[in-house]
Order: sequence, then structure tokens, then C-alpha cells
Amino acid sequence: MKRREFIRNAIIGLGTTAVAAPVLAQSQQIKWRLASSFPKGLDTFFGAAETVAKRVAVATGGKFQIQIFAAGEIISSSAVLDAVKDGKVEMGHSAGSYYFGKDPTFTFDTGIPFGLTNRQQDAWYRFGNGLKLMRELYGEQNVHNIPCGNTGAQMGGWYRKEINTPDDFKGLKMRCGGFPGRVLSKFGVVPQPLPASEIYSALEKGTLDAAEWVGPYDDQRLGLNRVCKFYYYPGWWDGSAQISIYINSKKWAELPLEYQAILEMACADAHVEMMAAYDAKNAVALKQFLESGTQLRVFSEEIMDVAYKFTKELCEEFAAKNPKFKKVYEDFQQFRDGQFQWFRVAELAFQNYAFTKVGTR
Amino acid sequence: MKRREFIRNAIIGLGTTAVAAPVLAQSQQIKWRLASSFPKGLDTFFGAAETVAKRVAVATGGKFQIQIFAAGEIISSSAVLDAVKDGKVEMGHSAGSYYFGKDPTFTFDTGIPFGLTNRQQDAWYRFGNGLKLMRELYGEQNVHNIPCGNTGAQMGGWYRKEINTPDDFKGLKMRCGGFPGRVLSKFGVVPQPLPASEIYSALEKGTLDAAEWVGPYDDQRLGLNRVCKFYYYPGWWDGSAQISIYINSKKWAELPLEYQAILEMACADAHVEMMAAYDAKNAVALKQFLESGTQLRVFSEEIMDVAYKFTKELCEEFAAKNPKFKKVYEDFQQFRDGQFQWFRVAELAFQNYAFTKVGTR
Repeated sequence: MKRREFIRNAIIGLGTTAVAAPVLAQSQQIKWRLASSFPKGLDTFFGAAETVAKRVAVATGGKFQIQIFAAGEIISSSAVLDAVKDGKVEMGHSAGSYYFGKDPTFTFDTGIPFGLTNRQQDAWYRFGNGLKLMRELYGEQNVHNIPCGNTGAQMGGWYRKEINTPDDFKGLKMRCGGFPGRVLSKFGVVPQPLPASEIYSALEKGTLDAAEWVGPYDDQRLGLNRVCKFYYYPGWWDGSAQISIYINSKKWAELPLEYQAILEMACADAHVEMMAAYDAKNAVALKQFLESGTQLRVFSEEIMDVAYKFTKELCEEFAAKNPKFKKVYEDFQQFRDGQFQWFRVAELAFQNYAFTKVGTR
Repeated sequence: MKRREFIRNAIIGLGTTAVAAPVLAQSQQIKWRLASSFPKGLDTFFGAAETVAKRVAVATGGKFQIQIFAAGEIISSSAVLDAVKDGKVEMGHSAGSYYFGKDPTFTFDTGIPFGLTNRQQDAWYRFGNGLKLMRELYGEQNVHNIPCGNTGAQMGGWYRKEINTPDDFKGLKMRCGGFPGRVLSKFGVVPQPLPASEIYSALEKGTLDAAEWVGPYDDQRLGLNRVCKFYYYPGWWDGSAQISIYINSKKWAELPLEYQAILEMACADAHVEMMAAYDAKNAVALKQFLESGTQLRVFSEEIMDVAYKFTKELCEEFAAKNPKFKKVYEDFQQFRDGQFQWFRVAELAFQNYAFTKVGTR
């Protein structure tokens, strides 16, 4: 009996006894270790894995326990994918974009510059080919991926001086990396892939001119508003940024179907929770920035146009060299076109009016 | 031991044996009936409850079964809340806005005109007071509510003639109801609360001049594009529309904690699924409308301004008469202000550029 038939029969309550028992019996205590790519201080990212572990424990009456390790505790941030692949840990929580160096195609699991919003990413994954294509890619690494969290549109970073034209990026030592770092390099930026803990002091000392991190809440925790005056938006490189739970494929296959379903649903719950957490917290932090003198600036249309041109060029370069990238990029572009065409209608018109005209202030 | 302590102990694996067993043992077969307020033809709404039932069945190894009845099969669409309250069925799937006549405060569970987007509604529910306030309201009806689905921003409806100024609404016989119907009445519209099955023929016969339903996918299924030329946006009365699972409070309290967690997570999963389904399907339907001659029109800023003014007046009227409405409205307004201020920055700037400038076309 194929797995799909099994699930169908389980749903309608037929003949599940005819199926071989999963390797791990449901009555058995399961204890898994999860390596997070995120430090505890990035608490909204880190918290999504905590939500998953708590939800799974309650739903299984404590029989399925997931122990979480922060970045670097047992596995370093960018080694999580390999650690799950090699079975050093059963699970990971990471961002596809962290494996840009291994293969830029992983970036589609997070989001490429000028990519999909969080909702559109969900639509591509659940009703387009997004999840299927990413499962193929991660499957080659013996990893089963489940979306688990998103930041929404990020900010465009902190700058010590104003950025009015594309030329103002030239020679800028800026904390950035991965795909965005490659696009910014085309502007003349000198990317500095510093860890979070070093950004503040580098800006203070002047060895760094600018930094992009996440959004108001996380940026405030790093104190970036105290060392830079100008806060730019939008982060055109992160229209949304999705993170994912990784599970060693063999371990996934051994899980009872009940626990597979519980783990998938816990990820969906954490997915909603993380996005909601950021929206709630960012609103508060932004207000505090505005009250304390941060200068909010929007990237000019000229800068956006050049950034989009550079992004397209880079995507075409990757696609020409990398058949996996090409395959995903083509599907992604087609889906994005349809989504952008629809979202510019009801959603964008509603938001443009509501966000700028509605309120008690 | 309080429930919160119980959960904490369950998570860390301590002393759960000391707790009295729930009324329903986990080993027991549970069969519940769910009355949906939605017909099967509105398959994305109806489908969210199907997703919940399937997920719960798989996660419990078939031990917790939920049988779904479409609107009118055993309970009529607008009687679902009372049916759950009175224990005629254990569960319902419905929209708070359907109980506008009972108390307009229920509308906040769905969304009021010029209200929150789906993401902001999630943030208000999970990190603001939204869910807490709605639990108080539904609790008085012996109902435990869990958010389960959203449509996103809806369209502004189909019209046989162009609507250029607020005066063009005068005397219009339009399919609408509830809170939006009350706002449109102030424009001079004569609201016609027709069920879905009667909209097409009423427009064809000319006994109806206009109709609002949901968005491209559902509107196409009713064939509204074949009887009206002009399709307006945005549906300022539904910046998002959330629907909810209702559970009889006594039945909810009897559920084992494991099953409560599973049911909550299944609702979160269906919540993401329904939004993703609409985003994917609406994009396809919109494209077909544009290819077949539908005239897409945006409501003028003058119309939006008047609609917002009427909405505020109505909210203030309700708040003056209804202390429950007042309490929720005040909390809602404060949360909305913070959200709109934040969303107009990174999210809106990203979307305005991406949706109008990015693409392969």
C-alpha cells in the first residue's frame, strides 16, 4: 500500500491494520536534538523552533521531545544543513539562504531579492511547485524540509550617511552577505559578512559604514539606532524571508504518521506565530525609533530600478551555469508574475489607502 | 494544579500522572459533528474545515473523527453559532460577521471595514488582545473560538454601470449585507442580502444592479463576469475576512490536552492553507477575467474617503450604544494604528515597487 493510500485510508478509517508498523512505535519515547542556526538573542527566529518543540510535546503527551541547541552550542550556524544530512542531529532550524555558497538554489527556500511576499511564498509552496522543488533540492542532502517561520518584508539597513543615488553605495563597507551581498557588490559595496555580535562595535569604531540586519525589533536589540542616523526601506533583497525546519530523511521516514502530521502542523502553527510576533514587535520598535530621532528614508526609484536590474542579471548568470537554479527560477518567475498581477489589485489598493489614510492619530 | 502548570509540566516531562484524567480518555474514539456556515460550492471556505478534519484524523491515528455538514444540511448558515452554543453539534465553522444582527461586536472576529489585513489580524490575535477579547465574547455563548481561515483583501464587487462618484451608489440595488451593507446604505444603496445561488439570475433579470461576493475565484464560479462588465476594487469593507472554528465550551473542556493541541494546530494549518489557496486561485481567475473583457476599475479616493467617514460614524454609533463593541473597538483602533504605521514602511514600499515594476511580462 502506498503512503498516499495509507493516509486516505487512515482518514476514512479503513484497513490501517494491514500496514506494516512504522519503525518507531507511537508508544515509544522519542527524543530528538534540533540544531538551530539562530542565536538565542535573535529570539523571534529562535522562538519558532521553541514553539514547535512545545507544541509537539503537548500534542504527544510528552512522548515526542525535541531538545533545542542555539547556534554554535553543538553545531555552528552555517553547518546545520550538513549536520542534519550526516545525522549528527535529527533536526535543524535554518535558512536556505545560509547555503548560498553550496548552491544559490537554496536561496529560493528563503526568498531572493525582489521575490515573493510571505503570503505568496505560502501560495507557491502549497499550491504551486515551490515545496515540491525545494523538497527535491533538500532531498539530495537527505533532508526533509518544512517551512517554519517568516520575517515579512525587511528593512534596507542603517547608514551613517544618506544614500540618494546608486553611486552613494560605492566603496561602502556594509554588513551584508549571500545573494543580497552579491547584488550590492554590483553597486560597489564592499560586503562584510559580520556576525550580529560584532555589528554594533564595528559601526561605532567606523570600520563599518552601514549594516543590514532584519527589521526594527531585532535592529533595536543590536542598538543599531544608536550608531547610525539613517534607516532605509524597503529591504528589496528580502520582500520576505522564510526559514525552515530540516529533518534527516531517514529519521523522518521512521516517524509514525501521527507524529509526522503533528510535526507538520506544529511548523504551520510556528509559521503563523513568528510572522505575527514580528508584526507586533516591529510596530512597537519603529514607533520608538521615530520618537528618538531616527531618520527614516525610502530608497529612491532609481536605486530600486538599478537593484532590480542587477538582481535579474545575477539570476540569469546563475541560471546559465546551474541547471537546478534555472529550473526553480523559471517556475518561480511564472508564479511570481501571476501573484504580483493579482496582489497589485485588491490587496495593494486596500493597503495603500488604509495604511496612509486610516487611523485615530 | 492549574492548566498552565499542567502544560508546562507536560512540556518538561514532569508529574503529569498527578493530574486528574480528562473526561474523555485519549484512547477513546471521539466522533464529533461540525456544522459549516458555508456551502460546498464555496469550496475554499468549506475546504478549511475539511483540512482540519483530515489533519486531526491523521494526527490521532483515526481516533478523533470530525464529520462535516455543509450549510443547510443539518444547520442553516446563520444558525451555526446557536447550534454550537446549544450543543446540537459539537463544532461549527463560521464567520463572526454572520452574527452582526445578534451583536455587531462579533464582526471583529472577521474584520470590520477599513480593518486589519490577514497578517495584522493574526498579530492582534496572538500578540495583542484580539483573541482574548473574542474569547470573552464567544465564551458568553458557551463557544470556544479558534481562527481558521482568511480570504485576504476582497474585491469591491460587480456593477452594471461605472461608479465614479459617491452619488453613483444612490438607489443601487446591491447584493450586500451586515456591516458593509450598513455603510453602503449611507451611500444610498438598497442592500439585498441574497444567497449565492440567487445572485447571478437576479443580475441577469435586472432585479439587482450590483453584487459583492468574495474575489476573482469565487466570483468566477458564480459567473458574475458574464452578467456585469465592471469589476471594482478594493473591497474596503473586507481588507481581510477571517473565519473561525467554534467548539462547544463544555466539549472543549472535556477534550484531552493532546487533542486540544492537535485541534488548535490543525486550525493553524488550515489557516495558512486557505489563504494560500485563495492567493493561488485568485491570480488565475483574475487573469482569465482580464483576457475575457472584464473592465477592472479602482474606487476613487473620493469614494474611499466617504466610505471611511461613514464607517467611523457607524463604529462610533455602535460604541455609544454597546459597551462590548466600545471595549473591543478601542483596543482594535490602538493596535491598528501601530500596525498601519509599521506596514506603510517596509512592506508597502516593497509591494508598491515589486507588484508594479517586477516581472517577466
